[in-house]
Amino acid sequence: MKKIKVALNGYGVIGKRIADAVNLQDDMELVGVSDVVSDWRIKVALSKKYPVYASSNEGLATMKSAGITVAGTLDDLLKQVDVICDCTPKKVAALNFEKYKAAGVKSIFQGGEKHSLTGHSFVAQANYETALGRQSTRVVSCNTTSIVRVFGALKKAGLLAKGHGVLVRRATDPWESDNLGIINTIVPELAIPSHQAPDAKTVLPDMDITTSALVVPETISHLHSWQVELTRAVSKEQILEIFAATPRIIFLKASEGLRALNETVELMIDLGRSRGDMYEVGLWTESLTVQGTQLYFNYQVYNQAIVIPETIDAIRALGGYETNGLASLAKTNRSLGIMQGDILQRILEA
Amino acid sequence: MKKIKVALNGYGVIGKRIADAVNLQDDMELVGVSDVVSDWRIKVALSKKYPVYASSNEGLATMKSAGITVAGTLDDLLKQVDVICDCTPKKVAALNFEKYKAAGVKSIFQGGEKHSLTGHSFVAQANYETALGRQSTRVVSCNTTSIVRVFGALKKAGLLAKGHGVLVRRATDPWESDNLGIINTIVPELAIPSHQAPDAKTVLPDMDITTSALVVPETISHLHSWQVELTRAVSKEQILEIFAATPRIIFLKASEGLRALNETVELMIDLGRSRGDMYEVGLWTESLTVQGTQLYFNYQVYNQAIVIPETIDAIRALGGYETNGLASLAKTNRSLGIMQGDILQRILEA
Amino acid sequence: MKKIKVALNGYGVIGKRIADAVNLQDDMELVGVSDVVSDWRIKVALSKKYPVYASSNEGLATMKSAGITVAGTLDDLLKQVDVICDCTPKKVAALNFEKYKAAGVKSIFQGGEKHSLTGHSFVAQANYETALGRQSTRVVSCNTTSIVRVFGALKKAGLLAKGHGVLVRRATDPWESDNLGIINTIVPELAIPSHQAPDAKTVLPDMDITTSALVVPETISHLHSWQVELTRAVSKEQILEIFAATPRIIFLKASEGLRALNETVELMIDLGRSRGDMYEVGLWTESLTVQGTQLYFNYQVYNQAIVIPETIDAIRALGGYETNGLASLAKTNRSLGIMQGDILQRILEA
Amino acid sequence: MKKIKVALNGYGVIGKRIADAVNLQDDMELVGVSDVVSDWRIKVALSKKYPVYASSNEGLATMKSAGITVAGTLDDLLKQVDVICDCTPKKVAALNFEKYKAAGVKSIFQGGEKHSLTGHSFVAQANYETALGRQSTRVVSCNTTSIVRVFGALKKAGLLAKGHGVLVRRATDPWESDNLGIINTIVPELAIPSHQAPDAKTVLPDMDITTSALVVPETISHLHSWQVELTRAVSKEQILEIFAATPRIIFLKASEGLRALNETVELMIDLGRSRGDMYEVGLWTESLTVQGTQLYFNYQVYNQAIVIPETIDAIRALGGYETNGLASLAKTNRSLGIMQGDILQRILEA
Repeated sequence: MKKIKVALNGYGVIGKRIADAVNLQDDMELVGVSDVVSDWRIKVALSKKYPVYASSNEGLATMKSAGITVAGTLDDLLKQVDVICDCTPKKVAALNFEKYKAAGVKSIFQGGEKHSLTGHSFVAQANYETALGRQSTRVVSCNTTSIVRVFGALKKAGLLAKGHGVLVRRATDPWESDNLGIINTIVPELAIPSHQAPDAKTVLPDMDITTSALVVPETISHLHSWQVELTRAVSKEQILEIFAATPRIIFLKASEGLRALNETVELMIDLGRSRGDMYEVGLWTESLTVQGTQLYFNYQVYNQAIVIPETIDAIRALGGYETNGLASLAKTNRSLGIMQGDILQRILEA
Repeated sequence: MKKIKVALNGYGVIGKRIADAVNLQDDMELVGVSDVVSDWRIKVALSKKYPVYASSNEGLATMKSAGITVAGTLDDLLKQVDVICDCTPKKVAALNFEKYKAAGVKSIFQGGEKHSLTGHSFVAQANYETALGRQSTRVVSCNTTSIVRVFGALKKAGLLAKGHGVLVRRATDPWESDNLGIINTIVPELAIPSHQAPDAKTVLPDMDITTSALVVPETISHLHSWQVELTRAVSKEQILEIFAATPRIIFLKASEGLRALNETVELMIDLGRSRGDMYEVGLWTESLTVQGTQLYFNYQVYNQAIVIPETIDAIRALGGYETNGLASLAKTNRSLGIMQGDILQRILEA
Repeated sequence: MKKIKVALNGYGVIGKRIADAVNLQDDMELVGVSDVVSDWRIKVALSKKYPVYASSNEGLATMKSAGITVAGTLDDLLKQVDVICDCTPKKVAALNFEKYKAAGVKSIFQGGEKHSLTGHSFVAQANYETALGRQSTRVVSCNTTSIVRVFGALKKAGLLAKGHGVLVRRATDPWESDNLGIINTIVPELAIPSHQAPDAKTVLPDMDITTSALVVPETISHLHSWQVELTRAVSKEQILEIFAATPRIIFLKASEGLRALNETVELMIDLGRSRGDMYEVGLWTESLTVQGTQLYFNYQVYNQAIVIPETIDAIRALGGYETNGLASLAKTNRSLGIMQGDILQRILEA
Repeated sequence: MKKIKVALNGYGVIGKRIADAVNLQDDMELVGVSDVVSDWRIKVALSKKYPVYASSNEGLATMKSAGITVAGTLDDLLKQVDVICDCTPKKVAALNFEKYKAAGVKSIFQGGEKHSLTGHSFVAQANYETALGRQSTRVVSCNTTSIVRVFGALKKAGLLAKGHGVLVRRATDPWESDNLGIINTIVPELAIPSHQAPDAKTVLPDMDITTSALVVPETISHLHSWQVELTRAVSKEQILEIFAATPRIIFLKASEGLRALNETVELMIDLGRSRGDMYEVGLWTESLTVQGTQLYFNYQVYNQAIVIPETIDAIRALGGYETNGLASLAKTNRSLGIMQGDILQRILEA
């Protein structure tokens, strides 16, 4: 099988996960990772035998003087690949995009960038096919990805009239220690509605949904609490059937001891998931409530990992060898152990 | 002026605040406080010259052996008062109620008890007059009180069609150290809708509102995030006028540096409020948004203090000398420094 | 009585407390406070009728356009006062010092500045008299102040051979919401020994003590855990007598329910202390242990307030009307309700 | 090779890690795990194909009714094994011990139990050989294990005169959501010295060390801050050589970006360690300071995992086939990827 040659620029919280995931695909080859840091983070990349490149000439000098074995610069890397995933911090991406285009390399950006950068936003189960043959796309943010998965399912079933979600966000990532957190407070976002619902419409237009967002003092993941108006009265069972048939959503049960964000993460760790990652939206099914045409539910969004399978699918779509979105999802899901529906039933069946 | 003789049973987080507030009223006399503890908490009551009684005979013995000057037992206290405020832990209240009735003392319970205990639930600005002459009432919980204030105003203006709020709750009180907290997680409540919206209807029936609740790892107060459907399109200014005219709601502005729960508390501390207490609902006005008939807003509920003025008003209502609810509110508000509308304008005007 | 005319530059967490404390002294007059902010913080100063000045011309413009009533600039303020307390952020102080000297105004800096700035460092009970008649001094930091109080007492008793303390520090202040915190981690300081013990020697030389420091995810105060080698074996009672005779140290007892930093703060709040401030070192006496010549103990340092009485005394020392240090301490202590020894005994005696 | 047949009783935070580690050893066979829970935790054990037993008859009934495939009871399991690891909650162990003895099964307890239960306490690198042929032992707690590793090395080098450590402890485990945490406070332990240093002497007597302990609001690991008096002046390099030659201690460098507890854990996760576990003591070498005969340092103790390799070695010692302690350590270390000395050098060499 011909392999898509992939580069990764920005070996951070998302980038390192993409590198590992690319490495697991039998139709992709990770040609190298590029960054400017020279501390433990990039040394782990070396220990995994990932070729390391410098994203800038200054970075090259710093990395070499720190004893890092550097295979070349980003320019050297670009000569060898079909697709590059850009996971650099915000604001650098636009400049990078020009560089990628000049090198004739297809590119994938993350949700911190605007839709207008590439003109295309991506969630695999919603619009894989529209990305085929494109030069570039943007994998939307963790929150937006979850919204597209969940509300795409309700929309497809013709059930979504209107919805409002409150997004309770983790303050910073678990590995951050540079005074980026908040302690003993809640910080509501300055603008309501917040940007996430409009962002979901860059993938799935024509959804009447809005969001508000709050930041709370924890690091492990986001939680969304939704109230939805349905187009008609259905039973809770019907709603659960719809979600059970939707890729990359798993069901969490408090009666099974999965009552809080951290217990879900512990389950992922126990299952041997890489880094304890949860790629799926984790939907609490017991507290999901239907009252007439009103639907209420909470779900968990593990922000460090939910976009990883989406990025793998995006690489495949841009690469163009796999034209069937569902086939790509299935392939990606197998490689990462992604489940669907009642997770405890799934692991007992496995 | 004839004074209402008041007793307090349960000198905890709410009880001690009620004692201080009763002490400030010129139409009330704090005859004594009753409890069973013998540590620093009750010693502070003694240092304030509050007569201390023992809620039980065992408590009496323990307290005396700890060197506490005890004025007698709860039974002794009941003989001297017109009204007792019961702030004991849940489940004790029903038994206490029988004792109060037997002693011919009117009684006020807190929101941890069920509506059915007394058959009457109280929020001063909503139903003061219905409590006049009653033998007992229940001051509803902090969350419920805030809902009644806010949605009572919208309902009175004929604007409330429907609403859903997500209640983000503090995990434990600031002074608790007995491993009652949660760390680095969010715990959604097991049932949606949660009990707070139904509880608000014990005071104000016929409101089509629902709530969900989450617990987050902080101690300083709750935050409610609401989405409301109005009966007709109005402007943001009209909504703000309605809330500005509603007692015990203050406006918070992020542009003034009041962006988070802890900054609001610091303002209260700076203003010299007793214990840094915020008795008002703190409504963020800049992020309050009206889109057609849709209304979105966040407000802060300082759970340690919001029910204190309500309890003072309830004492006055049961006492029966003040038959005008607004007069009682005004009196209570003056004594506690309670404001209304734009708090920073108010303090500059003062 | 002739009053010392005092100005305050930098109305932040320390500055606003100094302003309130100056305002309480019968031998001082708060002529004005100077800052550059124009949000709620300075509006509270206005509501307290403190004349507000602008620390810079840009600040003046911004404050005026925000509707703040400004009495003039810092230069105007300096013309009216004898002493200025500088509580501006680090690095501004050196420039300010030149301005104060040029204006002929005595000045007091805070512990964020270096000893070399003024050549004199101050803790009232250790070296009040050495500050008499000086043009300027530096009130040392919260941690250093606590060390001087505690180890000054042991040194004076001839008992201090050697000591090492681990300083467990709060990550940021309670009112901060600008992502200055840490979440779910501990950050040890990069250098051992840390700077606090050497800093204490700028006030009390010839102490063989060292410190290490760690930052933990809480906001309410610091905790020091010490191991001390005594010059001779003494009893625990003798140690407690020494500390009981030392100003501005109070005893905390776990058996009284004072087991953790937050319970102590709640006690201060219950006592009606302004802002819930604890000006004293809070020493846990039950866990204080003497084994031969080894002494172990923990104490709490409430970083927002412990230097406030020191600053008041420093003003008085520079002012020069009160030449007796103990008289100044006693005066300051009375005005702020500062206690000594077993705090619960003290409040029952009061 | 003859394999030691091993059972595990108590599939919790430690038990599940031991099961996984036993499963990795080529000289051991995990015959089954026993517990009483029937939620997600035990379902993961089933998904790993671990035979599941019920620790009690009530447990058996509950588990079966929850659909768990149960292989039998603990009594059935005991008939098939040579050694059982008891990881049940405290207080159950003594009863269990009688049962194990009656069944003729050797047993290993965890550090929550007292030394007197088995009369032998175990840390592999300190006293492996003394456990050979024994019927039972106790693997000491996480904190005690770290102390034995570090101070055993200093003692063996003849350098340890005296030491005092402050143990800053995590409040609860990362997966706990049942209100077991503390928020925004520090809780010092009631007794100084604390029990950990005496406990280390059950393994290594004749060490003049003491400890104090504090609990802080985080979940990821403990941090120890030590001050040590050496028997003679040595250089920092000599100290580092000693620790570099000591098994199960790794060096952490702030200059490499490893400045805080959470960054170290992220490194372990990045390295692909099972559950992100750190089995080694993580010693910060850059801040380790020697001043004459005074030595200061901080290290991290990952409480969920540090005792796992010790337990594997203890099984091997009781099993009796491997009589050489160093050989057992080496075997265990290889199976778990345990490193020594400068971890970043190690991973680059690998």
